[in-house]
Amino acid sequence: VSDLLATSRHLREHLIRRATLLVDERRARSNIETFVQRAANANVILRPHFKTHQSAKIAQWFGDAGVTRATVSSLGQARYFADHGWQDLTLAMGANPREVADYDDLAARIDLGLLVDHPHTIAALASGLNHPVGCWLDCDTGYGRTGVPWHDTDRLHDLVSLIEDAPNLTFRGLLTHAGHGYVAEDPANTFSQTRLRLQEAHTVLKRGLLSAGDTPGFATTRDWSGLDEARPGNFVFYDLMQLEADICTADQLACAVACPVIGVYPERQEAVIHAGAVHLSREALQDGSFGRLLGLGEIGFEGLLPGWELERLSQEHGILKAIGDQARAELVNLRPGNLVLVAPVHSCLTCEQFDCYQTLAGETLPRYHRESF
Amino acid sequence: VSDLLATSRHLREHLIRRATLLVDERRARSNIETFVQRAANANVILRPHFKTHQSAKIAQWFGDAGVTRATVSSLGQARYFADHGWQDLTLAMGANPREVADYDDLAARIDLGLLVDHPHTIAALASGLNHPVGCWLDCDTGYGRTGVPWHDTDRLHDLVSLIEDAPNLTFRGLLTHAGHGYVAEDPANTFSQTRLRLQEAHTVLKRGLLSAGDTPGFATTRDWSGLDEARPGNFVFYDLMQLEADICTADQLACAVACPVIGVYPERQEAVIHAGAVHLSREALQDGSFGRLLGLGEIGFEGLLPGWELERLSQEHGILKAIGDQARAELVNLRPGNLVLVAPVHSCLTCEQFDCYQTLAGETLPRYHRESF
Repeated sequence: VSDLLATSRHLREHLIRRATLLVDERRARSNIETFVQRAANANVILRPHFKTHQSAKIAQWFGDAGVTRATVSSLGQARYFADHGWQDLTLAMGANPREVADYDDLAARIDLGLLVDHPHTIAALASGLNHPVGCWLDCDTGYGRTGVPWHDTDRLHDLVSLIEDAPNLTFRGLLTHAGHGYVAEDPANTFSQTRLRLQEAHTVLKRGLLSAGDTPGFATTRDWSGLDEARPGNFVFYDLMQLEADICTADQLACAVACPVIGVYPERQEAVIHAGAVHLSREALQDGSFGRLLGLGEIGFEGLLPGWELERLSQEHGILKAIGDQARAELVNLRPGNLVLVAPVHSCLTCEQFDCYQTLAGETLPRYHRESF
Repeated sequence: VSDLLATSRHLREHLIRRATLLVDERRARSNIETFVQRAANANVILRPHFKTHQSAKIAQWFGDAGVTRATVSSLGQARYFADHGWQDLTLAMGANPREVADYDDLAARIDLGLLVDHPHTIAALASGLNHPVGCWLDCDTGYGRTGVPWHDTDRLHDLVSLIEDAPNLTFRGLLTHAGHGYVAEDPANTFSQTRLRLQEAHTVLKRGLLSAGDTPGFATTRDWSGLDEARPGNFVFYDLMQLEADICTADQLACAVACPVIGVYPERQEAVIHAGAVHLSREALQDGSFGRLLGLGEIGFEGLLPGWELERLSQEHGILKAIGDQARAELVNLRPGNLVLVAPVHSCLTCEQFDCYQTLAGETLPRYHRESF
């Protein structure tokens, strides 16, 4: 733990001066290939969500594995991936009437899918679009965030009719995000319920595809029957939340933040790193902690280092707690300037705090940077 | 609530398409002037922390009020403000031995203050600096994050000696951040304890200035005696955490995020905005909620809208709950594409998620953008 650089040829000393987002390419490509294979076995279209990585270079790893379609969660991400050659994108976020002109510009150059659940939004698209757009109806299968409840057949019928009557909108099908699978005791059970509920709605509508997307469901279940399309995203990197929920194993964790130690306090079994909420996000595990330490070896990331918890976070500081004899012995040897590797609680939020990844081979992979105006 | 734009001449329709960080200049300047006046009355140097706003334009509002010194929390912020003419900056974050060459470059062109609490860091500065740097000793007055405990007189003495013996380091004094004031039942009491503990350490050392910095202490107490320097930062905008702790009033809240509604669900008294953890951060109030709605009038921000809570957040979505008859009546009239104004829980973290502010007069104020490698 005392200095990650000492244990890896892959990181040159001068590269890491401050909190830096690392990706283990070997692990990420393996995670991608696993899902591509499962989708092929299930005869389901894989349209992975790119909001987790938001990097054209990492998107290419998906392309290398045969993926040609993707999902995004903002107009800016859609433009970014369109600029990098992705021709078939679904913006799986309720369409925003204020961005219709931007959607139309994008629909002029790619095959764009949008998501709706409100007559007002459909009307705004109908009046503002000059180019054809695929239109998904957001179906709430139990998460309770957005969408029409799966059993509300009158509203489903009415909204599909509005879509079908709108110029430049083509009804694609029902799209759901079963986000409650992330906190479910049994994600496989939630996934099975999600598929049944989508099929129930489809039986009523008698048309359209069925698209579902969440890593816990697809990662824990091999039976994807009843679905046409899968949109998981987090699986490219996974994270400690997924590990805590038994969705992944520690050797699938594919991104982490290298952080410089700036303070060492053996008297209270703590060290402080210059990496806080602005680097890692404030997402916490069930025990309230904000991360764990990972080992780094010759080939890449290794397992979690026992006894180390990122116990508290402020804006720029992270407070590491050493629990147990081994971690406390390591703490005594720690010095300001040493690096530690923090596995993130929620990789989607942590990666969002960085403009780029560094691979263990020293390559820089730029990320989309969110336009804030 | 239904559409902020309808209630304000200041925002032109075309400006706001997606989540946008707004600043009420009148309120922020008033917050600044209040603190400048208090520091003058207390005969204490005001060296405000710029980590909250991180904007050269907003820094100029401090300059307009007579402020010439500032505090920052990263090397990148220090370089940014130096590039914008700030000649006297303290980097109030434990110095990172990996950045010594960068500190040295900066020290060649401004009056730079650094913070230390470890012999190894002092040694790294001593061997790597070619230009003079002011060196503060980090003193822990009870927060338990970084620094030497105020009562550990042997270590205080030893570290001051190391600083005084190092070429290019000049001992400036003791610096503390009493961050426990943010969660204290009585922040004024914490502040009084902080000042007494700093003075206790000073009585032993018999040299150096005393610098303290936290908004709760300085906002709730007029008696700043015993201190030479004040480094609060959050007061420029305040936020809901400060309001919840009675540190500020609602009419001092000076930044907020305009967010487009993308879903309306009267059957469950909820609406959904396209603004989630990546826009607002996951910092929560004591009741677990992630924000409140603010009104917007002709002159600027108004009071909090009763009955509205930002109840849940995912990566890009925020779920607004309407509680009580008034909010529920407003909810029924809400449509996708309407804007709402979300007051942040912790303004330092929310502002970090944006590259710029928009003033209510339509001016764009760029922010420092953190270098992620």
